[in-house]
Amino acid sequence: MEKESLLAAISEDLERIEAALAAVQASQVPFINEVSHYILFAGGKRLRPLLTVLCARLCGYEDPRIYELSVLFEYLHAATLLHDDVVDGAEFRRGRRAAHNLWGNQATILVGDYLYARALRIAVEKGNFEVLKVVTETTLLMSEGEVLQLLNVDNTGLTEEEYEEVIFRKTAALIAAACECGGIAAGASEAERKALWAFGRHLGLAFQITDDLLDYLGVSTETGKDIGTDFKEGKVTLPLLYALQNSNDGDRQRLLSLLRDPEPTPQGFEEAFKIIEKNQGFERTRQRAQREIEEALEHLYRFPAHPVRDLLEGLTRYVLIRRK
Amino acid sequence: MEKESLLAAISEDLERIEAALAAVQASQVPFINEVSHYILFAGGKRLRPLLTVLCARLCGYEDPRIYELSVLFEYLHAATLLHDDVVDGAEFRRGRRAAHNLWGNQATILVGDYLYARALRIAVEKGNFEVLKVVTETTLLMSEGEVLQLLNVDNTGLTEEEYEEVIFRKTAALIAAACECGGIAAGASEAERKALWAFGRHLGLAFQITDDLLDYLGVSTETGKDIGTDFKEGKVTLPLLYALQNSNDGDRQRLLSLLRDPEPTPQGFEEAFKIIEKNQGFERTRQRAQREIEEALEHLYRFPAHPVRDLLEGLTRYVLIRRK
Repeated sequence: MEKESLLAAISEDLERIEAALAAVQASQVPFINEVSHYILFAGGKRLRPLLTVLCARLCGYEDPRIYELSVLFEYLHAATLLHDDVVDGAEFRRGRRAAHNLWGNQATILVGDYLYARALRIAVEKGNFEVLKVVTETTLLMSEGEVLQLLNVDNTGLTEEEYEEVIFRKTAALIAAACECGGIAAGASEAERKALWAFGRHLGLAFQITDDLLDYLGVSTETGKDIGTDFKEGKVTLPLLYALQNSNDGDRQRLLSLLRDPEPTPQGFEEAFKIIEKNQGFERTRQRAQREIEEALEHLYRFPAHPVRDLLEGLTRYVLIRRK
Repeated sequence: MEKESLLAAISEDLERIEAALAAVQASQVPFINEVSHYILFAGGKRLRPLLTVLCARLCGYEDPRIYELSVLFEYLHAATLLHDDVVDGAEFRRGRRAAHNLWGNQATILVGDYLYARALRIAVEKGNFEVLKVVTETTLLMSEGEVLQLLNVDNTGLTEEEYEEVIFRKTAALIAAACECGGIAAGASEAERKALWAFGRHLGLAFQITDDLLDYLGVSTETGKDIGTDFKEGKVTLPLLYALQNSNDGDRQRLLSLLRDPEPTPQGFEEAFKIIEKNQGFERTRQRAQREIEEALEHLYRFPAHPVRDLLEGLTRYVLIRRK
């Protein structure tokens, strides 16, 4: 499926998701709405609500109330972005200044708390206890994942399994939950729910692995983020992890010393980039993302052929070739 | 009811609450347990779970599962304490170093998120949708209240109504929810639930007003906090608000200039203290707390006479004379 036909096929859903987001009852505190608006309407891809809507439809659910439910995942996502911004000290997010640089850490933390509470209120309002179970379980996993990631900064001995655990909790768990909750809304069977969850899990892993790859290979004007921030912050992601595994002693020592440079330079990053490239760090990362895509599709293929299945397949394949 | 007989009457409940807190399933991430333990077992009064247990009993509910449910309010409270610590930049909490000074802002924010998610999971595990409704509604109010408080720092034109709104959201809403959820667990009527909520609301207002008074009048070794931090941070609470209303132009100008001193001194605080005292700031604050106590008791008296009602009355009256 070509990018253009994919976009055409989801454009109506995206419009209705935007409308549902705009329709969520605002806070009585105007300042909260200002910050929320900045983070919620900053050009997000709406991947999570879109997955909820499409997974519900795949299970035969056509009720438009799905849009109202689906946006809770965008709220949850926005809440984690705000706390991430503070924790990472990121300067930019989606090509704009990160929220904490505009409103300070204090307000950013508290509006994050608000968006999280708002997300749970949507689940309560929709009256679906099963959705609430999945959502609270997921937020627990996510908060543990954020802590794990923080503890693993500078851990150059990080294994591939540990890396996977972090990105599962940090990114894939919420995407898996968004998919499963589409199934729940549709009254899907236990087996279907599990398949949707597993589909979302592998899609989410591929998504985050690609994100980590774009942090090296992306173009700043396209991704809206600085390039090389992970490396500059000493964060070990898959390209570096593979390169460290693959390199000879000389390359490994050089990589580690560049990684630990307290004042990283563009030249240092360029040198590290070349060492990672030479040691197949990017190539193997791309292959790993590809494998996750294939696994995601295996779970998707448990559902009978259907135009919505094709759409989900197209979205899944697009994750790998996206440039932002 | 004397303090000693009050303590004796609640000692078994407090023990069972401690046991329930200790029995909550730990995180798989040891570091999270370390921070959680520090904040959860730092000598908290367990007021919120105790109110849930006693309010349930007042409505005739004796099932020991109430202890398991009640601790969700201690988890929620601990989560807000962690985020408060970061937002306030407080140095001490309950006589020990504030969490963010030990583990840094990043970990403190994220463990706060974890405790919040854990609290909601307890509500989900207990399977009570009504409790979840009240809890999510309350967390929404609370997060808005925290933002309001942040926006009101330095607002010397704060009215008594605005102050009440902030402390309701910040403190009283959670205490009211803890009381109401005791009633929900007991299957109380709508009228009983409302009475418990209103009782908790006024009790919570009295509690926070007394807290704000102790920030001026307390003894640091008893409260475990620095004295005068609100004033030094430019935070307008009731004693100052009343004093500003009551004082002549000279006193008001002097108070405002001391409040805005970018480098506050102990001498400056002492001078401000005397001006507030002279203008009945403390006296009127105490009277206001007393009125909240009386209002709380009015709602409590809607329930028939009962030893548990006496206990709740004793606890309520104790709020005003507590020294920490």
